[in-house]
Amino acid sequence: MVDLEYMITLSSDFGSPYPAAMKAVICQWTDTRLIDVTHELPRQNVRTSAFWLCEVLPYFPPAVHLAVIDPGVGTDRDAIVIRAGEHALVGPDNGVLVPVGRTLGNGEFDVFRIETREGSVSGTDRTAWPPRLASATFHGRDVFAPAAAKVYETNLDELGETEGFEATEQFESLSFPDPEISEREASGTILAVDGFGNAITNIPGDWVADQFGTQVSVDGETAPLRETYARVDPGTRLVTVGSHGNVELAANQGRGDEAFGVSSGEMVRLSLI
Amino acid sequence: MVDLEYMITLSSDFGSPYPAAMKAVICQWTDTRLIDVTHELPRQNVRTSAFWLCEVLPYFPPAVHLAVIDPGVGTDRDAIVIRAGEHALVGPDNGVLVPVGRTLGNGEFDVFRIETREGSVSGTDRTAWPPRLASATFHGRDVFAPAAAKVYETNLDELGETEGFEATEQFESLSFPDPEISEREASGTILAVDGFGNAITNIPGDWVADQFGTQVSVDGETAPLRETYARVDPGTRLVTVGSHGNVELAANQGRGDEAFGVSSGEMVRLSLI
Amino acid sequence: MVDLEYMITLSSDFGSPYPAAMKAVICQWTDTRLIDVTHELPRQNVRTSAFWLCEVLPYFPPAVHLAVIDPGVGTDRDAIVIRAGEHALVGPDNGVLVPVGRTLGNGEFDVFRIETREGSVSGTDRTAWPPRLASATFHGRDVFAPAAAKVYETNLDELGETEGFEATEQFESLSFPDPEISEREASGTILAVDGFGNAITNIPGDWVADQFGTQVSVDGETAPLRETYARVDPGTRLVTVGSHGNVELAANQGRGDEAFGVSSGEMVRLSLI
Repeated sequence: MVDLEYMITLSSDFGSPYPAAMKAVICQWTDTRLIDVTHELPRQNVRTSAFWLCEVLPYFPPAVHLAVIDPGVGTDRDAIVIRAGEHALVGPDNGVLVPVGRTLGNGEFDVFRIETREGSVSGTDRTAWPPRLASATFHGRDVFAPAAAKVYETNLDELGETEGFEATEQFESLSFPDPEISEREASGTILAVDGFGNAITNIPGDWVADQFGTQVSVDGETAPLRETYARVDPGTRLVTVGSHGNVELAANQGRGDEAFGVSSGEMVRLSLI
Repeated sequence: MVDLEYMITLSSDFGSPYPAAMKAVICQWTDTRLIDVTHELPRQNVRTSAFWLCEVLPYFPPAVHLAVIDPGVGTDRDAIVIRAGEHALVGPDNGVLVPVGRTLGNGEFDVFRIETREGSVSGTDRTAWPPRLASATFHGRDVFAPAAAKVYETNLDELGETEGFEATEQFESLSFPDPEISEREASGTILAVDGFGNAITNIPGDWVADQFGTQVSVDGETAPLRETYARVDPGTRLVTVGSHGNVELAANQGRGDEAFGVSSGEMVRLSLI
Repeated sequence: MVDLEYMITLSSDFGSPYPAAMKAVICQWTDTRLIDVTHELPRQNVRTSAFWLCEVLPYFPPAVHLAVIDPGVGTDRDAIVIRAGEHALVGPDNGVLVPVGRTLGNGEFDVFRIETREGSVSGTDRTAWPPRLASATFHGRDVFAPAAAKVYETNLDELGETEGFEATEQFESLSFPDPEISEREASGTILAVDGFGNAITNIPGDWVADQFGTQVSVDGETAPLRETYARVDPGTRLVTVGSHGNVELAANQGRGDEAFGVSSGEMVRLSLI
């Protein structure tokens, strides 16, 4: 296995073209590798964005992950760094970084507040550290991108002694709801609907893993339980276990959310038959 | 001309954020350059996706091209590598890689089946080779991304002797339909409609190349034949030859598919007037 | 601060997958870093695209910026390079590069016409220089991508003596409209609406910077003037100063364009109350 380059990944709900300003600012600091994770996270939806970060970021080798879903931009919410294992997460203190921080650190992580300085910035230079609050509406560019670059060039072990970072025990936490599971019944929540229309629950796939080929009741209606989409006819709905390891309501070459009439955040009750 | 870095390109119909998990897994293996081709291929549409791969991948210098359009994920369809010239293509054995393989290899190419191992994988490490079937629904992350990285680090000439790859003569083929062409008439098929609304046929542009400035009949209705969009007024439809070298039904600053009332897969009949 | 790699950025209104063909052609020339800025610029809208280039490109360190918004592709409009400070801009001569050229060069910039050669090109090699007009409809791939790579490998000071580039004083200019400002009233234009629905005016934020917390009249209707979105209740409209430094019509966690009933290009009249 080769020695891998440490890198910076970028996630946001910005769509286009604002993420490019974050990439540009990071390029003012370093020419390390930048990997776009996604800029299509659900707009200003902290909880579902936190779910998606958990789905994707743990597959990266050690990296600095910039993740900006920030409905409170410009208020007094803090900007933070979470150090978790050999990874660092940079973003707003609204809980969005916490679940993936738990995953990356096997339950353990440290939080550092990013200090900012008041004072106007003229022009486009964003290499000052600690960062200035150049705008009240785009901290992705003005605070988080410089912070990600600064974390990138700092030994993670020395973050607590580095100017601009201050260890803190105070931060917004976030947890996903737990399902209620018995041997034959499970009540869970739709955590997210992906772009294919797969409705992803918080019910662990283990609950159904030895039952593939049977039927399951979803809110009182029967559907086939199968290992993968193509085990039913195109257009037909099914219950399966998705790539995240959770029970998922799907339709082969169709949208599971529509086929089951569910959407993100809703409760769903499954029974083995 | 400089010596060029060999690279990995990524194409899929995944939208967002799943492609990032494939990039993350490749980053577990190598820090070579990753180029996103597109993750907006038409969902689970093997034929049109194959067309787009033909349009774009041949412009790359030698590379490993990961391309996942995989409606049969989790069934017993094979995972394959196509070696074509100095390029390699990695994806499902459903035909999607074959037309571009023909193009890249000037009609010649070799196919290798990717072996996978049953057995559970815990956690996010995807550096085992041959790959384990960690999920039934996301082979892009669990099989194809590790395979692309493995191909990247393997001398293409030695693919047949490398563990996890097995030469095969058995694979799903795919060809685009041929048009019927006479001197004054051509019957063809709409192979794809691009994001601008240009309806791209399989009729070669040579058929009309010396007729620009005249009129052509499309399914009985007359339209101007012009070298480029701006040769007609904004909003006006035209027949032209697209960047792919094929006859295209277009509209200047409008959508050709709507202006001509055609869609992907439909037959179209053109007559020179 | 580290020595930074010079890079190539890409902007277009191409959506997907055509930008990949531009990246592929650049990869035929060089393996320098490629940064996608956006490929979702408003289709064939030169003025609004010029605005977005101004918003993002100045945050990059010195780079070659390829920017293709080209409704006149295939007509006799020129292909140009703008040299501005340590940056270069490559794209069509339709004005789209001019405002950002002014910004990058502090008002000063030089323009060079890109020479092209007639003559057919067979195959996908695009390393010939000057470029051939391989297609009439995709100069992004056939002219601008090779030109960006050629500029990248050329000392910017020697552009005028380099084959394929010719200094010119003739080019399409473009300016944004000026607002009319008095102490208590401002009439401006909506320059763009971003993906969040924020309607960005040409009225400088300085005009309201010391008035946050008060009310402002927008076309006769009152709205709160606040430093950032979250200073009003979710769904409520507000007037603020965006990250671009201009007055913006917004709604907290909603769309400002819909809340105020405005769209790009429209005039808007604000009064301090």
